Amino acid sequence: MRFDLPPEIFLAAQRRITHYVRRTPLLPRPRLYGDSFPSVHLKLENLQAGGSFKARGVFNHLLQLDEEQRRRGVITASGGNHGVALAYAAHCLNIPATVYLPTRASEDRIARIAAWGAKIFKHGRDWDDANLKALEHAEQENFYYVHAFDAEATLAGQGTLGLELLEDLPELDCALIAIGGGGLICGAAAAIKQRKPQVRIIGVEPAGAPSMSVSVNAGLVTPLNETRTIADTLAPRSVSERTLALAQRYLDEIILVQEEKLIAAMRWLWRECNQLVEPAGAAVIAALLQDEALVARFKQPVAVICGGNAAAESVFGNYHNAIR
Amino acid sequence: MRFDLPPEIFLAAQRRITHYVRRTPLLPRPRLYGDSFPSVHLKLENLQAGGSFKARGVFNHLLQLDEEQRRRGVITASGGNHGVALAYAAHCLNIPATVYLPTRASEDRIARIAAWGAKIFKHGRDWDDANLKALEHAEQENFYYVHAFDAEATLAGQGTLGLELLEDLPELDCALIAIGGGGLICGAAAAIKQRKPQVRIIGVEPAGAPSMSVSVNAGLVTPLNETRTIADTLAPRSVSERTLALAQRYLDEIILVQEEKLIAAMRWLWRECNQLVEPAGAAVIAALLQDEALVARFKQPVAVICGGNAAAESVFGNYHNAIR
Repeated sequence: MRFDLPPEIFLAAQRRITHYVRRTPLLPRPRLYGDSFPSVHLKLENLQAGGSFKARGVFNHLLQLDEEQRRRGVITASGGNHGVALAYAAHCLNIPATVYLPTRASEDRIARIAAWGAKIFKHGRDWDDANLKALEHAEQENFYYVHAFDAEATLAGQGTLGLELLEDLPELDCALIAIGGGGLICGAAAAIKQRKPQVRIIGVEPAGAPSMSVSVNAGLVTPLNETRTIADTLAPRSVSERTLALAQRYLDEIILVQEEKLIAAMRWLWRECNQLVEPAGAAVIAALLQDEALVARFKQPVAVICGGNAAAESVFGNYHNAIR
Repeated sequence: MRFDLPPEIFLAAQRRITHYVRRTPLLPRPRLYGDSFPSVHLKLENLQAGGSFKARGVFNHLLQLDEEQRRRGVITASGGNHGVALAYAAHCLNIPATVYLPTRASEDRIARIAAWGAKIFKHGRDWDDANLKALEHAEQENFYYVHAFDAEATLAGQGTLGLELLEDLPELDCALIAIGGGGLICGAAAAIKQRKPQVRIIGVEPAGAPSMSVSVNAGLVTPLNETRTIADTLAPRSVSERTLALAQRYLDEIILVQEEKLIAAMRWLWRECNQLVEPAGAAVIAALLQDEALVARFKQPVAVICGGNAAAESVFGNYHNAIR
C-alpha cells in the first residue's frame, strides 16, 4: 500500500486552525558572528502554543468533531508534547480530554498537561505501550482518538508548518526536520514537495531511537526493541506504515545524531539565540554540529526547532532561593 | 538643562546597524487560552544578538569610530548585558574591548563576555562603582568609552526598537518597557512619541531598584544608597541627568514590581511562550501580573521582553547527568 496525502488537505487545515495556533517566526538574521552555518534560518516552532508543533495536528482534528464527539471527549497517547497540545486544545474548545503517557514522561510536561485539566494515565516504558492502552480506553468509552502521527488529520495539521516555510521563505531549498513517529516531517515534506519538489528534506533521528531509519533501510515497518535517548519525544519504538510510505516518497536523507551532540546543540541554541529548548527541539542543530557541510550547498536552508518543553524548573528554583 | 534627542538620529542609527543586529519578532497571536492579558503583543528582544537590546546602542557607537579609535580599543562598565553586547560587537568588528562589571555580575554573562575575547575587570558592588573605574581606565589608555545609557549614540541605537514597534504594529497605542539606567525606555519612547505622541509609555522598575522613580519624584537625579533585586541588569544606583530629562518628557507612568512577581513573570513566559528570560526581561510581565487592568483600555499594547540572559546552566547540567 502506498499512502499519500492530497495537496488540498494542507490548505484546508491551515484555514481551519489559523485562529488557534501561532504563526511562529523564522529567526531573523544576522546570527552571531563566528557561526559555523550562518545561512540557516531557524523556524522557532518552540514558540507554538503548547511549546511544540503538535498543536497544529491536534486542532485540525478537534475542529472537525461533531457535537456528540465533543461531548464524549477525546483521548490520545503521547511522549509528552502531543499530550500537552491535546490538553490545551481540548481546554480551549471545552472538550473533555484523556492523555496516556509512558512512565518516563517528564514531570514538566505532566504538569503542563494537568494544568489544562486533562485526565492523565501512565503506562509502559515507551509511547507504543501507552498507545495500546489508550486505544483500549478509547474503544471502551467511545472517545475520539487523536493519533500522535498516524492519521491524515494529524499529518495535514503538521504540514501547515511546511506551508508557512514556503510562504515566509519562497526560495526555500532545504529543510531539516526531526523525526519521532514521522508526523511532522512527513506532513511538512508532503506539503512542501507537492508544491516545490526540488526542496531537499533531511530528517534527523537520535542514534538511540532510529525507528524511521531502520524501517526505511529494511523497506518495511521494523519496530525497535528499545529506544534510549534524552530526546524522549522522538522515541516511539515504531513508525507506522503510513509515515514510512510518506518518508519513502518525500524524504531525501536521514541523519542520526548522538546524545552528547543533542546537549551541545541545546547549549548552542541558548548561547547564540537565547532559546532554551528540549533535546528533540535541538536535534536539527545537533545534525549541523556533527556535519557543518550538511547544508553548505544550499542557499536558503531552514532548520525546524520543533519543540521547546525542556525541564527548566531548576532555573526558577535557583532564582527563588536568591530572594529568600 | 533639558536634553532631547533629534528625530533623525533614530533613522540614521537604524540604517547604520541594520546588518549587525536582528530584527526581533513580535510574538504572533494567539496566545494561550485563559491568558489574563491576551491583547498584549510581546516584542521578543531576548532574541537579539547578545541576548538583549544592548547590541543596538553598542553597534551604533562602534560603527561610527574612526580607524585610530578602533585600533586603540573600546571600554565600558556594565551590569552584564551591555558588556556582552560590547564584547560581541567588538569581536565582530575586530576592535579590542574591555568590560568592567560589578562583583555581583552573573557567571553566565561573564562567560559570554569572555567567549567574545573581551578583557574583564570586576569592581564594586554596583554598576556605578564599576563605571567610575571604567572611566578612569578609559582616560589612562585613551580607549573609546561606550556609556551603557547616558550617551546620544546609545539612546539612538536603543531607540531603533521603538521604530520597529511602530513599523510592525502601526496601531501601537501603549508600550511597557523596563528601566535600568533608562537607555532603552528613553530612546524608544523618544523615537515613538516624536512620531506618535499619543502612544502611552509605561516604565517598569524593580521596587528594590527604583532609581528612575525616585529621581522623577524628586525632580532631580537622586542616587539610591543601595539596590536589591534579582533583576541585576536593572540595578544602577542612579540614572543620569539626560535620561531623567528624557523620562520627564516622554514617560507617562512608572510601575514598581516586587521580586516574587519577577519570578512569577519568568514562569509565565516559560509556561505560555516557552521563553526563558532573565528577571529584567520578565519585569514588564510582572507589572501585568500585578495589575491586570494596566493595559486593559489599550487596543494594541506591546510589552518589550528586553533581555534573556538567565542563569540556565543547571538545565544543561541536569541533561548531561541523564546521559552519563
